[in-house]
Amino acid sequence: MALGSRHLLGLENVSATDIAVLLDTAESLVEVSRREVKKLPTLRGKTVVNLFVENSTRTRTSFEIAAKRLSADAVNISTSASSMTKGETLEDTARNLAAMAPDCIVVRHPASGAARFLAGVVDCSIINAGDGSHEHPTQALLDLLTIRQRMNPPGGGGGRDWKDLVVTIVGDILHSRVARSNLYGLRTLGAKIRLCGPPTLLPEEFRSFGAELYYDVGEAVKGADVIMMLRIQHERQMGNFFPSLNEYSRYYCLTADVVAKASPDVIILHPGPLNRGIEIASEVADGPYSVIMSQVANGVALRMAVLYQLIVPGADGIRGSEVSRTAVTAADTRAQAEGGDEVRTALRPAAPR
Amino acid sequence: MALGSRHLLGLENVSATDIAVLLDTAESLVEVSRREVKKLPTLRGKTVVNLFVENSTRTRTSFEIAAKRLSADAVNISTSASSMTKGETLEDTARNLAAMAPDCIVVRHPASGAARFLAGVVDCSIINAGDGSHEHPTQALLDLLTIRQRMNPPGGGGGRDWKDLVVTIVGDILHSRVARSNLYGLRTLGAKIRLCGPPTLLPEEFRSFGAELYYDVGEAVKGADVIMMLRIQHERQMGNFFPSLNEYSRYYCLTADVVAKASPDVIILHPGPLNRGIEIASEVADGPYSVIMSQVANGVALRMAVLYQLIVPGADGIRGSEVSRTAVTAADTRAQAEGGDEVRTALRPAAPR
Amino acid sequence: MALGSRHLLGLENVSATDIAVLLDTAESLVEVSRREVKKLPTLRGKTVVNLFVENSTRTRTSFEIAAKRLSADAVNISTSASSMTKGETLEDTARNLAAMAPDCIVVRHPASGAARFLAGVVDCSIINAGDGSHEHPTQALLDLLTIRQRMNPPGGGGGRDWKDLVVTIVGDILHSRVARSNLYGLRTLGAKIRLCGPPTLLPEEFRSFGAELYYDVGEAVKGADVIMMLRIQHERQMGNFFPSLNEYSRYYCLTADVVAKASPDVIILHPGPLNRGIEIASEVADGPYSVIMSQVANGVALRMAVLYQLIVPGADGIRGSEVSRTAVTAADTRAQAEGGDEVRTALRPAAPR
Repeated sequence: MALGSRHLLGLENVSATDIAVLLDTAESLVEVSRREVKKLPTLRGKTVVNLFVENSTRTRTSFEIAAKRLSADAVNISTSASSMTKGETLEDTARNLAAMAPDCIVVRHPASGAARFLAGVVDCSIINAGDGSHEHPTQALLDLLTIRQRMNPPGGGGGRDWKDLVVTIVGDILHSRVARSNLYGLRTLGAKIRLCGPPTLLPEEFRSFGAELYYDVGEAVKGADVIMMLRIQHERQMGNFFPSLNEYSRYYCLTADVVAKASPDVIILHPGPLNRGIEIASEVADGPYSVIMSQVANGVALRMAVLYQLIVPGADGIRGSEVSRTAVTAADTRAQAEGGDEVRTALRPAAPR
Repeated sequence: MALGSRHLLGLENVSATDIAVLLDTAESLVEVSRREVKKLPTLRGKTVVNLFVENSTRTRTSFEIAAKRLSADAVNISTSASSMTKGETLEDTARNLAAMAPDCIVVRHPASGAARFLAGVVDCSIINAGDGSHEHPTQALLDLLTIRQRMNPPGGGGGRDWKDLVVTIVGDILHSRVARSNLYGLRTLGAKIRLCGPPTLLPEEFRSFGAELYYDVGEAVKGADVIMMLRIQHERQMGNFFPSLNEYSRYYCLTADVVAKASPDVIILHPGPLNRGIEIASEVADGPYSVIMSQVANGVALRMAVLYQLIVPGADGIRGSEVSRTAVTAADTRAQAEGGDEVRTALRPAAPR
Repeated sequence: MALGSRHLLGLENVSATDIAVLLDTAESLVEVSRREVKKLPTLRGKTVVNLFVENSTRTRTSFEIAAKRLSADAVNISTSASSMTKGETLEDTARNLAAMAPDCIVVRHPASGAARFLAGVVDCSIINAGDGSHEHPTQALLDLLTIRQRMNPPGGGGGRDWKDLVVTIVGDILHSRVARSNLYGLRTLGAKIRLCGPPTLLPEEFRSFGAELYYDVGEAVKGADVIMMLRIQHERQMGNFFPSLNEYSRYYCLTADVVAKASPDVIILHPGPLNRGIEIASEVADGPYSVIMSQVANGVALRMAVLYQLIVPGADGIRGSEVSRTAVTAADTRAQAEGGDEVRTALRPAAPR
């Protein structure tokens, strides 16, 4: 789904150019959260509804903070699929919300395809914040942003190309929407992808992504530039896929010994929440190669970028152009000084006037 | 309860003039939600508490969005009656909230009379967002606004008088606060009211509203200008009132065949959430006569109007006068341009200066 | 923990000077909630996260309203300890939140010491909103503010010194974080403290606070200037400590007869929610000596003061100096008139320019 379509449903059909636009915009917004006044007037008078039909404090909070830092009104709806369906279809729920004229509905839902379904029935923007085991595009984008920051620092000289990066994803590939979105994104950018997990959680079909499959984590991370660990959803019944958490962790837990086989400047990502001692050892999660906290910080900036690009009319015109960090900062500083309302366009790229 | 009293507890004692003021104000606010910047500075620095002792995502969201589009601070409290009463009376809960100096408490409560009770113990405005099977005045007002828009379009020539309208309400009349508020409002405006439902849900006493009672839905809608369907609360035990949902729907579901007996320009309302196939057929809910989505959109504007009329000092002076849509838009546009604070009066009627 | 440390974890180590600064600031903010526009621009662009791992509508609402009246963005996270620990440590939860760059995390947690623990792992301000049976410093501070208002009215002549005040605290001293924080605060200010409760809930160790212990409530309140009642947490299992609520209330309920033994101008406090007829009689709770509603109103002002003092850079410089109520009002009025952004410093003490 192209960015120009007003929705972000997944990364499957998002072009490298659109990914770059979103990452560039996010990069320019990272510093907003470091300011004394962490707020841009960009989305004043816009309404963002967070419709979470599956619980996720972390992702909901990230979207809520992102919306508020852009001055949007954020409205939270937390419910369960069971109470939701009691007498009302998902379509009716969505159409009702849409009739209240939000600019964007951020939706988390246990059913794969829920976000795409909603995009077909409402006329506001839909952002997929995780649908079943399908996609979780903003998580993948923040992962890509984190990788890009470390591998190709802006302004730095010796940046590396995506095509030179080896990225290893370890865990429950089969059920992971995080893995799926990253697979699409990384494939589009051209990175070398290795997938690793127990055979029950890593079917042969995944070769179709152009990925290499590994069943031994030591082999999988050998020389890797990026290791992306997935969370074992042990609160769901996993008994069909591996004998026990103990067995899983004995073979697939990322320990310092395993990390030692990766590239010397490897970075380690995890989408959280961490199961310490199960899929990742504490020494690794808290160690020097971990960029987990950067992921979280980038998450707010990335979601600000997505909200901005989807909601602001004319923002599509940004595609392919460079968002100058200087331009954003300067325009916004002026906006803050003037306290004016018409500065909602502060984020648009600098243009000759 | 007259509008001038600072509370909206029900429509039982609201005059035709006050209803007109609220509908006029709402009409002038409908377009705010269609703007690019959906926000008026009117209630900046005001606090609106949504106290929902009974779950209602839809109504709470509508009030929250209404408050935020008027720049009020909205604070949500969702709780259950059981956890509420654990050690604290409703009066103490309300007095505590009132001590935090909100300008308005919007209350939804399972007990009939809860809103009126609160109005007696606190000194801020109370809006009844549904109390037991008593009243749900903002729902009825948004229904009246929707009917008025279709039957008597503003600026249009051949508008019809309320007295010429036949309104049929179908369903569980006995337990419906939506029906009760509409009965009061429609009676005040002078519409012809027909009530229809199984005899167990439509006692003879309802004739006292000046309504005609029907037990056959085909008869009830014959020539009707407005059909208002009620939701069957099938999650509550309904076994005492009709044998089964199947039986109910066989006799009272609004199908296209039934609608065909109504006026050719009939409009069909439903307060939601829909039980498709139970009280209303999908072909009708999604068909050309349905104005259900207009109801939801009008709900935000109507609640903005109620919040404004109850909270803004001096707004009482608006009663009986005409709110010019042009005046609101012009004043607000100026307000947005100036970015000033003193424009909180933007909504007041234009006066000679 | 000194105020200058960015955290408010308890009153144990807060100096009399710091307490005075917080009470003075709160005093100057009380009138904000009485204005027509109840909002200061002070914390615009700041993010306050309310992390409530234990349910508390009342305290959460007070903090949320306080944050919003200072123009901060408030983000609520309500969860239970059980769902929290499912796969994630409290430390990881907190570090994740901190990575989203909030300025302050307000934390309520069932475990004593949780707030201090968080202060050690994150780099934003932590406010303890109640941790187990340890401390609840903002409750104690609002109690102190309420006492000071009544005993030593600002600007009034015959104010009394803290050292001349007899304060009696009655109830479950052992488990009460409210009692503990008040004990620290009152001891620091030099008040005479009497503690009263069943021996099982009032161990001898409490003498170490410099308090006198009573087991008879009539004796305990004799001549007291302030009576502070504690809530019996009867939803927790109390069977080990007294035979029944009936027994408890027969001996320790504050009735008018008991109050008659106190000073003629005694004031009566209760942190709420009230158990009417258990620890306090309705005639007393609603009677002329009760200042319970003032406590709640002061709670918003006090929490505004704490948020301001902890979050605003340079506010530490306020310590020991006098916050002029006039200065605040004047600066803020000017700020509102100008509608400017740089008036975030409105609350800082007036300085020669």
